[in-house]
Amino acid sequence: MTFDAWASETFDDSFRISVKVRQTLFAESSPYQKVEVFDTERWGRVLMIDGLFMTSERDEFVYHELLTHPALCSAPAISRVVIIGGGDGGCAREVLRHPEVQSVSLVEIDRLVVEASQKFLPSIGTAWDDPRLEVRIEDGVEYIANLPPASTDVILLDSSDPVGPAEGLFNATFFAACRRALKPGGVLALQSGSPFLMPKTFRDTQRVIAESFGCVEPYFANVPLYGSAIWSWTYASDQATRYPKIAQRWGSIAETCKYYNLDIHDAVFAAPTYVRRLLR
Amino acid sequence: MTFDAWASETFDDSFRISVKVRQTLFAESSPYQKVEVFDTERWGRVLMIDGLFMTSERDEFVYHELLTHPALCSAPAISRVVIIGGGDGGCAREVLRHPEVQSVSLVEIDRLVVEASQKFLPSIGTAWDDPRLEVRIEDGVEYIANLPPASTDVILLDSSDPVGPAEGLFNATFFAACRRALKPGGVLALQSGSPFLMPKTFRDTQRVIAESFGCVEPYFANVPLYGSAIWSWTYASDQATRYPKIAQRWGSIAETCKYYNLDIHDAVFAAPTYVRRLLR
Repeated sequence: MTFDAWASETFDDSFRISVKVRQTLFAESSPYQKVEVFDTERWGRVLMIDGLFMTSERDEFVYHELLTHPALCSAPAISRVVIIGGGDGGCAREVLRHPEVQSVSLVEIDRLVVEASQKFLPSIGTAWDDPRLEVRIEDGVEYIANLPPASTDVILLDSSDPVGPAEGLFNATFFAACRRALKPGGVLALQSGSPFLMPKTFRDTQRVIAESFGCVEPYFANVPLYGSAIWSWTYASDQATRYPKIAQRWGSIAETCKYYNLDIHDAVFAAPTYVRRLLR
Repeated sequence: MTFDAWASETFDDSFRISVKVRQTLFAESSPYQKVEVFDTERWGRVLMIDGLFMTSERDEFVYHELLTHPALCSAPAISRVVIIGGGDGGCAREVLRHPEVQSVSLVEIDRLVVEASQKFLPSIGTAWDDPRLEVRIEDGVEYIANLPPASTDVILLDSSDPVGPAEGLFNATFFAACRRALKPGGVLALQSGSPFLMPKTFRDTQRVIAESFGCVEPYFANVPLYGSAIWSWTYASDQATRYPKIAQRWGSIAETCKYYNLDIHDAVFAAPTYVRRLLR
């Protein structure tokens, strides 16, 4: 990262996003990665890991609402939820807005991410004290492999891209283990990268999920700090198609949502033509 | 613009997008603005005006297809089309894909933009020689004011943001003149800025259009080079609601579209919750 009061992320050595920094609040390395938190001019506090923007107070609502609510507003049951990654606490916050959720396990491999987020990003992780939440510092791949079969309603993968610590989350063995851990009819949702900036990774991820799940549907929106491009998440279940949205679930979270609503729930699944062609 | 082999656009002195440049192909100033064309590493050729990214060969399809086809795939008639701005030729190219279009006037105030685009961006303006296209170098505000009433089926505003030469395009007098120049039932479409990066400008534009048009509906997508955020266009007509899409029109352009399709046509009109609240 070049740093002259700007924090920057560079893609393909050809495209760069920079945010003006007021102050570095935190910068430490764990055995897994370098974790930094910046206070910025217009993006609030920003979490950066290994030189990649992870989230900011200004735009995190887009990412966290879209990772969570398409699954949680349509899955047949949502009592038992597992989050892999998600150490900033934003995904857990959105999950725990649903009164039907009875228990959430957040499984983050890197303690440093959780500690930095709890201390410096309290506006993102507002649900750390919810008694329904269990935080486990351990490897998500092993955790999923060891879950009892058919024990979980919804699994959310809130990971970085498939390089570094998250690499093991994007292969056939892991998705097969997710399928096994889910109850029949359970739903998996994950962030799945940018089809514009990383088309091959996006396409390969769709294909590997389809080895274990019958319904695999990517959906799309823009998270400003994520490479300035269309981003994707993916919804998967053992059914043939997505479950229809459940308006009553939306009713219980509507007031707090800044991005998600029932029109957005369906609209985000419309794929641009170039993405359709990529997936053919 | 800072230039160290990167071309950059900075928003609010706090956020910056940079593209790695191989070579500056063109850099001249007109009485209106500074016009530059760069050859870049991964974005093809890029047009920059007064330090703002206008379009690139890599992502221009998103902007030009979405400015054009929601209007042209739904307006009751599309024989006679006027484009204000659009000096790079990309919007005219998309309009002229429709066989029902009989004549297009492209009214660009700055000859330098047209000349630079014709010479250095031939992959974007591929329809300059179409006999249905008339290029006029003149002020779009005066042109629209002087059009015979009820003479035009569709007006497209392909302008920069409401500062500099485009300022006169975003006020009540101009939109009233557009309404007057349109046939009953005619459609206006325009780029209307980012509700994320410039919420007040976006909201003010919606309100001023509504002084002249009954149906005013913004729609949304991401254009990567436009400030890393959700972008908007606006669809307006004298009706109460949008016209439904016409599948037959889509059939005639489907093969060439990279972004637009019939699912996208409706999906882009779904507004995120924060945008709904902004417009309340």
